[in-house]
Amino acid sequence: MTITITAFQRSPDRGRGLARDMRVRWALEEAGLHYDVRLVSFREMKEPAHLALQPFGQIPTYEEDDLVLFESGAIVFHIAERNKGLLPDETNGRARALAWMFAALNTVEPPIFDRSLVTILERDQPWYQHRLSALEDTIRVRLASLSARLGDADWLDGAFSAGDLLMVTVLRRLHGSGILEEYPNLAAYVARGEARPAYSRAFEAQRAVAMAASAG
Amino acid sequence: MTITITAFQRSPDRGRGLARDMRVRWALEEAGLHYDVRLVSFREMKEPAHLALQPFGQIPTYEEDDLVLFESGAIVFHIAERNKGLLPDETNGRARALAWMFAALNTVEPPIFDRSLVTILERDQPWYQHRLSALEDTIRVRLASLSARLGDADWLDGAFSAGDLLMVTVLRRLHGSGILEEYPNLAAYVARGEARPAYSRAFEAQRAVAMAASAG
Repeated sequence: MTITITAFQRSPDRGRGLARDMRVRWALEEAGLHYDVRLVSFREMKEPAHLALQPFGQIPTYEEDDLVLFESGAIVFHIAERNKGLLPDETNGRARALAWMFAALNTVEPPIFDRSLVTILERDQPWYQHRLSALEDTIRVRLASLSARLGDADWLDGAFSAGDLLMVTVLRRLHGSGILEEYPNLAAYVARGEARPAYSRAFEAQRAVAMAASAG
Repeated sequence: MTITITAFQRSPDRGRGLARDMRVRWALEEAGLHYDVRLVSFREMKEPAHLALQPFGQIPTYEEDDLVLFESGAIVFHIAERNKGLLPDETNGRARALAWMFAALNTVEPPIFDRSLVTILERDQPWYQHRLSALEDTIRVRLASLSARLGDADWLDGAFSAGDLLMVTVLRRLHGSGILEEYPNLAAYVARGEARPAYSRAFEAQRAVAMAASAG
């Protein structure tokens, strides 16, 4: 079985591990799977060959024999279902892990991702401060709920799962904002995720691509 | 097996089927399952009893024997996995259906949901028109990709699946905006979903709650 994923040839985050291939790399490393990476330029992402794999012209994609997948959440779930270490064995626990995966991507990520975009694209607009504080208020509402649920546990629901993997990648985008530090148990949770050997291997792999791109 | 879901006692959309219990009701109707509904007030949603089921204080939740689930995407997948008619039988097809579920909720829904919020909350702000057009541009980029992929097919990937179910509920939020009509194949796709008998049963059930609330 050969696994090939796609990633940015030049990631806009310059190797900070915020692009969505990071999630897939991390899941593959947790599962101990070898994978190839095909780098795509922004132009190539909008061309028919890539659109056949990813209808929205984004990265990552995942190819394995005759299976083609897109959406990092679905790719991580596919890897998690077929390998040890990313989902509980018990059926109900697996359903709950998927709930945390959707919570990460549909409930927690949208305001955090918007905040990043606004700080880049709307900094000079007259509504900038208003938009930024509105988004940060929404983020705090979500983080307060998440922090209350996590309590002093290591992970969201028993052992480390694909739900934690996605949630940590979503929360990492707050590094540098000061917001994560308002919730010490969440800051520790993110640090716990980042301390996993599989995380480090994935992070270094994506960082090497960014370093090569900036040198080239 | 008794299934109980939660829904708004007074839905902010007044029965237009935009609240997220609609998705779960629709999936349950497609699967031919009986379910009970427990209505919760906005106050009750933020109280410990509900937060134990839904850490972010939202609806819907799903209870079935000793399983408690939240996140409409995860609930719909759980129903789809255990019943006929919402996922292909073949393994790769199931993984692709989950990709469309994540695409609906993580790629297509965020700008559409934001547009709704902006039209309610920011209508009197000086930046309203600018914000609205920026969001509508983003929505059009997503819809153009989706429209190109759908082409003249009935559904996104073979037979109707949980991916279509979620995508239709996401696109429905554009009713009245005029945007959906710019993509005739997507407008027809939404109409095809809304014409399903299971959709009608779910829609009428949630509408009856809203009618009772406004009469009460």
